[in-house]
Amino acid sequence: MRILGIDPGIATIGFGLIEAHRAEVHMLTYGAITTPAGLPLSKRLMQISMDTEELIGQTKPDVISVEELFFNNNITTGIAVAHGRGVILCAAEKCGIPLFEYTPSQVKLAVTGYGKAQKLQVMDMTKRILKLRAVPRPDDAADALALAICHARSRTSRLPVTGDVKETI
Amino acid sequence: MRILGIDPGIATIGFGLIEAHRAEVHMLTYGAITTPAGLPLSKRLMQISMDTEELIGQTKPDVISVEELFFNNNITTGIAVAHGRGVILCAAEKCGIPLFEYTPSQVKLAVTGYGKAQKLQVMDMTKRILKLRAVPRPDDAADALALAICHARSRTSRLPVTGDVKETI
Repeated sequence: MRILGIDPGIATIGFGLIEAHRAEVHMLTYGAITTPAGLPLSKRLMQISMDTEELIGQTKPDVISVEELFFNNNITTGIAVAHGRGVILCAAEKCGIPLFEYTPSQVKLAVTGYGKAQKLQVMDMTKRILKLRAVPRPDDAADALALAICHARSRTSRLPVTGDVKETI
Repeated sequence: MRILGIDPGIATIGFGLIEAHRAEVHMLTYGAITTPAGLPLSKRLMQISMDTEELIGQTKPDVISVEELFFNNNITTGIAVAHGRGVILCAAEKCGIPLFEYTPSQVKLAVTGYGKAQKLQVMDMTKRILKLRAVPRPDDAADALALAICHARSRTSRLPVTGDVKETI
């Protein structure tokens, strides 16, 4: 099974493709979609939309694993990321690829065995699990590979994203 | 000038089209795009994307006026709306229509002359300005018409949406 992890954003959208076969996983490719600073938000969103569809077309994943949004301090950043995430989910849907969402804690738990692991620990374990010589760069790509691993290790217990959106919107 | 106001959301996306000629404005059409509850978020986003593009194709606006997102209490709702808004901005960009953003205060000020007006006052003034027999329903459509009026009354002093997104995303 080909699993494409996507770490949503506006300036940098990490992606990582792995092949998973039972307990075996290996990395196929990774990288990032970027949009230039200073470009109007709507143009950045259109670029993210087109690049995500192109990425899906090129990598031909069986499923996409995407990070759930959590907000600690910076709501402004979270709102911007949510704009980009909306466009990414829409692109995945247009391509007909099943989507799965994982929280940062689920990713940490699946990759390191500890739901409160530090970011560097997750990156290091991602490198080890995929037998890479170095931690993938940028960080967003490493995060995306961790999301893909998380799905590989969790896929028997998850259902696709459901529409649990409050009806007061 | 044909101005299409759009009030972003996930369940209900209000729209309102007006023709503005100097100080004169009149309503051409209004309504709402809706998505069914229970549908996965990605499918709702795809539907919003397609319906928005179709709406733009049918109404042929010269500009689109869309609400800026502000958050008071409910971050969860705000995040969901931001997903929908991302898809709407992307659809507008794909159609090549210039986008303008207005805060709720700017809309209130432009429509009622008072930036802290109550929602009902804004709706009532929207009805009067557009010489309608009743306040448009649903509320989202009335909000969208108010956004269009706001642009008609502000358009000499605004520039299109710029990409003021923090580069840490």
